[in-house]
Amino acid sequence: MYRKDVKVLDCTVRDGGLMNNWQFSDDFVRAVYEACVEAGIDYMEIGYKSSEFAFSREEVGPWKFCDEEDLRRVVGDNQTPVKLSAMADIGRIDPVDILPANESVLDMIRVACYVHQIDKAIVLAQDCMDKGYETSINLMAVSKVNEMDLDEALQDIGKSPVPIIYIVDSFGSMYSQNIQYLVEKYKKALPGKILGIHAHNNMQLAMSNTITALSSNCNMLDATLLGMGRGAGNCPMEILIAFLKNPKYRLLPLLDVIQNHIHPLQQDIPWGYHVPYLITGALNEHPRSALKWMASENRDDFVAFMKEMHDYE
Amino acid sequence: MYRKDVKVLDCTVRDGGLMNNWQFSDDFVRAVYEACVEAGIDYMEIGYKSSEFAFSREEVGPWKFCDEEDLRRVVGDNQTPVKLSAMADIGRIDPVDILPANESVLDMIRVACYVHQIDKAIVLAQDCMDKGYETSINLMAVSKVNEMDLDEALQDIGKSPVPIIYIVDSFGSMYSQNIQYLVEKYKKALPGKILGIHAHNNMQLAMSNTITALSSNCNMLDATLLGMGRGAGNCPMEILIAFLKNPKYRLLPLLDVIQNHIHPLQQDIPWGYHVPYLITGALNEHPRSALKWMASENRDDFVAFMKEMHDYE
Repeated sequence: MYRKDVKVLDCTVRDGGLMNNWQFSDDFVRAVYEACVEAGIDYMEIGYKSSEFAFSREEVGPWKFCDEEDLRRVVGDNQTPVKLSAMADIGRIDPVDILPANESVLDMIRVACYVHQIDKAIVLAQDCMDKGYETSINLMAVSKVNEMDLDEALQDIGKSPVPIIYIVDSFGSMYSQNIQYLVEKYKKALPGKILGIHAHNNMQLAMSNTITALSSNCNMLDATLLGMGRGAGNCPMEILIAFLKNPKYRLLPLLDVIQNHIHPLQQDIPWGYHVPYLITGALNEHPRSALKWMASENRDDFVAFMKEMHDYE
Repeated sequence: MYRKDVKVLDCTVRDGGLMNNWQFSDDFVRAVYEACVEAGIDYMEIGYKSSEFAFSREEVGPWKFCDEEDLRRVVGDNQTPVKLSAMADIGRIDPVDILPANESVLDMIRVACYVHQIDKAIVLAQDCMDKGYETSINLMAVSKVNEMDLDEALQDIGKSPVPIIYIVDSFGSMYSQNIQYLVEKYKKALPGKILGIHAHNNMQLAMSNTITALSSNCNMLDATLLGMGRGAGNCPMEILIAFLKNPKYRLLPLLDVIQNHIHPLQQDIPWGYHVPYLITGALNEHPRSALKWMASENRDDFVAFMKEMHDYE
């Protein structure tokens, strides 16, 4: 399955931060960074670019803002082949808080939006491109978008200069056929653009959906160490790299950081496959109700959660 | 994805027993049985048929033998639509220990064999058919079988009256393309026979591979509650049933037995995705070395296990 154009993006800190409000130690983030460097991973997404009007520094850690001084404390000037990315959520970032690329260690800004925000996303992405960044649009929760809205959004993206578009299975509700259908649709609507895939694991299909997208010529693949990420988590990086057998990647540095940093953290932060996440995934719902349930005393009462969610047998 | 001919087989006790030497309480087995009945599952595999020359009753529990009195203590005369199955391993069963079907609550014997045992498997399966059982052959570890041996085995099976043949990913090393390839090969070599799929989760592809097989017209689907099974475990029954949306199945009884019996057991018996199982799966190796590693004090030293297994980066 070796394809030169394939790029793997580690978003352990960014997506995993959704589980601990980005309260990672510098040592942790540095360990992930160094593992990405050693393993030959193409991109590391080190957090979100956000503005202070949107979040309180009392509540969220530095990787929710990605201030330049925080980044440089961990990666220095990043004199490595790994490119650094940050995600920017529409509505939570003032563009003035994004420095020109030549003043930042960041190489890429990925703009995340819902379908009704697509025009704002294109404007922000254009601004980031003007500042010198690689840029993508990550259209979230596409499993809830009706076909007419999606077609219109893709048309708008198609007319824009944004070069990379992600298929994002935010709720972990898609299976192979959905992915194939969307990849074909995106390819048709967005000729010449690069496609990416960001999968969640609610139905234990994140790895499979990533391979399916890859087989259909998606070239940007998101993954996280030990699948660390919101709720059921993401496509596990170590499985993806073991699968790809691409000579530019090395598995051993990933296993090293997993055993020394990620796996120990999983004792405190229970991401991964759990029945409440399956239920929201199977129902094509945002995982927030499952996250709340998992944080409650009733976390192991799966029947009660199912009944609360739906009259579903 | 509703297809009338699809049959789901629960092998929680049989495959899960590989993790605890089939030392399940009657209450546990009864709870699984009752959940299968309530949920409309088609078959429940309640253990192995084995002979005493092969195993010691000091070491393994009753579900490794499936004596009639043990079965009836749990299921009575099984006056339910659920059919009961037991697996018989070539070399570990004397056919005289398999009663005629009309004297047993078992409805089906699944004969498991490696490729070099295929002739013995056909003879045993024929004996079981003569005794009145539904019968299948489950050709294990097919990911290690060379093409000529496989073609010959399929030819032999094709000439036999055995009606059901399983594709068995014993090592959890297969992905979608492998499954598709094998299903097409089996279909071509075995016209008129029913195909089944038994997947393992080392690369988190068990659910996906089961769907892939289903899409290619495999009609017998193995799964286990919460994926309980050897090593990384199996296709999780609750995900499969949530996915199938087949009106004959109900999810809630499965969630109930999971929360009351299966999930609590996972605290003591750590089946499921763990990095050592990924490593044996990715290397297409039997999980025994990973199982041994997971039972040792070094279980969380993934790098050392990787280095022991292979010079693999």
